[in-house]
Amino acid sequence: MRGLLVGRFQPFHRGHLSVVREIRTLRPEEPLLLGLGSAQASYTWENPFTAGERTEMIARALAEAGLTGVTTVPLVDIDRHALWVAHVESLLPPFDRVYTNNPLTRLLFERAGYVVEGPPMFERERYEGARIRSRMAAGEEWSDLVPPATASYLESIRAAHRLRQLAHAGGSRSVP
Amino acid sequence: MRGLLVGRFQPFHRGHLSVVREIRTLRPEEPLLLGLGSAQASYTWENPFTAGERTEMIARALAEAGLTGVTTVPLVDIDRHALWVAHVESLLPPFDRVYTNNPLTRLLFERAGYVVEGPPMFERERYEGARIRSRMAAGEEWSDLVPPATASYLESIRAAHRLRQLAHAGGSRSVP
Amino acid sequence: MRGLLVGRFQPFHRGHLSVVREIRTLRPEEPLLLGLGSAQASYTWENPFTAGERTEMIARALAEAGLTGVTTVPLVDIDRHALWVAHVESLLPPFDRVYTNNPLTRLLFERAGYVVEGPPMFERERYEGARIRSRMAAGEEWSDLVPPATASYLESIRAAHRLRQLAHAGGSRSVP
Amino acid sequence: MRGLLVGRFQPFHRGHLSVVREIRTLRPEEPLLLGLGSAQASYTWENPFTAGERTEMIARALAEAGLTGVTTVPLVDIDRHALWVAHVESLLPPFDRVYTNNPLTRLLFERAGYVVEGPPMFERERYEGARIRSRMAAGEEWSDLVPPATASYLESIRAAHRLRQLAHAGGSRSVP
Amino acid sequence: MRGLLVGRFQPFHRGHLSVVREIRTLRPEEPLLLGLGSAQASYTWENPFTAGERTEMIARALAEAGLTGVTTVPLVDIDRHALWVAHVESLLPPFDRVYTNNPLTRLLFERAGYVVEGPPMFERERYEGARIRSRMAAGEEWSDLVPPATASYLESIRAAHRLRQLAHAGGSRSVP
Amino acid sequence: MRGLLVGRFQPFHRGHLSVVREIRTLRPEEPLLLGLGSAQASYTWENPFTAGERTEMIARALAEAGLTGVTTVPLVDIDRHALWVAHVESLLPPFDRVYTNNPLTRLLFERAGYVVEGPPMFERERYEGARIRSRMAAGEEWSDLVPPATASYLESIRAAHRLRQLAHAGGSRSVP
Repeated sequence: MRGLLVGRFQPFHRGHLSVVREIRTLRPEEPLLLGLGSAQASYTWENPFTAGERTEMIARALAEAGLTGVTTVPLVDIDRHALWVAHVESLLPPFDRVYTNNPLTRLLFERAGYVVEGPPMFERERYEGARIRSRMAAGEEWSDLVPPATASYLESIRAAHRLRQLAHAGGSRSVP
Repeated sequence: MRGLLVGRFQPFHRGHLSVVREIRTLRPEEPLLLGLGSAQASYTWENPFTAGERTEMIARALAEAGLTGVTTVPLVDIDRHALWVAHVESLLPPFDRVYTNNPLTRLLFERAGYVVEGPPMFERERYEGARIRSRMAAGEEWSDLVPPATASYLESIRAAHRLRQLAHAGGSRSVP
Repeated sequence: MRGLLVGRFQPFHRGHLSVVREIRTLRPEEPLLLGLGSAQASYTWENPFTAGERTEMIARALAEAGLTGVTTVPLVDIDRHALWVAHVESLLPPFDRVYTNNPLTRLLFERAGYVVEGPPMFERERYEGARIRSRMAAGEEWSDLVPPATASYLESIRAAHRLRQLAHAGGSRSVP
Repeated sequence: MRGLLVGRFQPFHRGHLSVVREIRTLRPEEPLLLGLGSAQASYTWENPFTAGERTEMIARALAEAGLTGVTTVPLVDIDRHALWVAHVESLLPPFDRVYTNNPLTRLLFERAGYVVEGPPMFERERYEGARIRSRMAAGEEWSDLVPPATASYLESIRAAHRLRQLAHAGGSRSVP
Repeated sequence: MRGLLVGRFQPFHRGHLSVVREIRTLRPEEPLLLGLGSAQASYTWENPFTAGERTEMIARALAEAGLTGVTTVPLVDIDRHALWVAHVESLLPPFDRVYTNNPLTRLLFERAGYVVEGPPMFERERYEGARIRSRMAAGEEWSDLVPPATASYLESIRAAHRLRQLAHAGGSRSVP
Repeated sequence: MRGLLVGRFQPFHRGHLSVVREIRTLRPEEPLLLGLGSAQASYTWENPFTAGERTEMIARALAEAGLTGVTTVPLVDIDRHALWVAHVESLLPPFDRVYTNNPLTRLLFERAGYVVEGPPMFERERYEGARIRSRMAAGEEWSDLVPPATASYLESIRAAHRLRQLAHAGGSRSVP
């Protein structure tokens, strides 16, 4: 069997790492796929980091934590929910167990016959992507909310500066 | 002549049925096209049901009401308003009269030279798609707001469960 | 049960009509869906007629032949074969039997667990879309290859003129 | 050298004209490109006018003001910010200086190595697209906020009527 | 009145220049739009040059020839022929006369009610985009087939090298 | 430094494996990315296998060969060659060396400033995707052309049957 955990990881934080560690501990013999949602997006408030940058920050965090058996795969969005599971199946090697706490993800995978489990969330209020992005944009402390290796990678790509600019751009979606 | 009524029908309710009946009564010799807007969408809060499910719930309601001369055609969205009428013309058999109360739909069809009529709405506040979806998600009574045949079809596909899940998924558009 | 027959019907010809008649005769109690493939395409050599025009030419032919229980639904293409069945399922009311002689259509529906049947083709060499289009473009006789009601509709929209122009445009895809 | 100023110009107003005049005065020997953002959009509240209409209202205003050396080029959106600069580069003749006050536009062009300047804004509160659109829709005076030639062009295409309809259509995005 | 001439101009050659000169001479008071077809394409055998490069090579050739009153506008493709005229209308300022020798372009504009004229072609066999591209790729003489200013621009962007590489890449469309 | 090798791997064969081994041997300290081109495609003659299936067949072959330090990433196509490198950069973790024998891939990466190397091909005529697909479709021996682990995986998904069907479907792209 192989498991799948889908997320956007904007950015990958300690809550994510904790979930991955738990799944790996619970089922050490079952390889785990991390599906990178909205892989085509970047430089927006919701999705500031490219799929490549997210792949890199995850790889460093997992290496630092000594976690193996995890593969990250970018999943570009498809704007058709009824087709989303077929889309994911076509991009990923075979998997049979899905981990998610998102009700829509659960709905779609259950409809397609998958076993879906809700992994226990780790201090959800503290470790939450939107909150970390807001702290970055506001110039507040954020680095202790992500794994150390991720923090230093984010600093190397000047993540806080990027978030600050994106915050000022506000909703001005059309230019660009 | 042939008429066209465009809507998303999420879900098809008694207000819709009333408008269709009125048009058919007023012009019994004029076939009526129902254009299913946003046909590509489903499993979202605004568009929970697939085009196929909507086609089915409409067909059952019309059969139950003994209404004939009505054809339902899915219209996938095109994200270019200036091209929308040409898009609709390419997907539908010829029509020459448009029924709508949507100001944008009216604007676009009038610009293209069509006769546009605003059909009298039937108890608009009571029969409104968003309100029915909210009632479904909240576990409130909703089945008397849609035709009986539509209600039993919706129950057979577990519509209320779906709406409940979509309500919890909130605005989290990107995963999926 | 409901059946599905997918085709592009460019144009709808006597071979198509014969297949529809046979299916309706064999299973009179089973409604039949005609899926109009490549519904978004028109004014190309492979797909000269819009989905609306094809819907109209089929409707007239079926009425002329006294065939009922058949519903035509436009299917816009999706350029992802692994997702195509999910796409079709989302656009159509429920169906459970598929009629096709196209090996790819068969492969995809069988993979999704459908019962697939190959309807006997009716004088395939004589009644074939590409051949009829070539005859139209060349100014040769073609009207006896399609049902009479379809022939007069095609004349009313100056189909032969269109095909002649498209033939001259050749492969010049990019302008337009 | 050649300069680039990107905007949506919905509509082109006196603030825009003032910025263009300033840039032309400062660097008379440097041709200026006006990139028309969201060129594919029209008949929405944010983007009521087509790219063609915007090109026309700009051309008339520049002629009236006696400004030369300015070329307008439509830029259709690309929904991938990480690719946006490459997209703009492929559509425009070579340029090397970018004028913008949008933080995201600045971020993306700086990341690609461009010189970016923020032109002084001219009475930003008074001359602002959204405010002018609101005044049009509300039937308030608006014509003194745009150059005279633009005002008479907008009247000729019944712009205020269009805005009024779009305001009533509200957020109803999906039909159309 | 305003005229429109659509082409891909891959590259802009003496035949194109001759047609433009003739139209400008025949109707000096009528501004001419050059619609750059397939503006989104580049680095393919059919469309080696970006829209920006084509805009530049045309601007230089027209300046050299002393031709004024001509505006070049990129037209990205839309893969729906039935919508193409509406697409072009939305991107261009108003025009009422179309010049084309392409049967499909003629068919679509005539269907939309435009006056269409076929400009006399200038030594079509000699001046033809595909032939010039082939000569470039083969290392043969080509520069006398395009206006001198275009030739020197093409040399400055190493056009022949690009064509040679594209010729070797052959039909391998998918990587990239 | 990190290297990138782009291919479609339809299927992954001994020639591919040989190139990967050589690169890993030459630069053991440099991680290698395998970019899976046309990741969105499957069930076509050119691209019979999904990205997921290709990921799986590569993973098994590399494990069997004892090759480590290689990561496979799906790359969906983008139909804009001028944007392709930016697209790849956004999907992949940082890389600085590109291995390719495709002239277009070389042209685009060199234009973006990358170091590009042409790895020695291994018996190119013998090990070639199109040839292996043809042998599969024709019922000829093919399994010795791919690594043993890939061969048994391909057998488990009935690859030869799929190719046979796709061969019969011929060029009929539009249905589906």
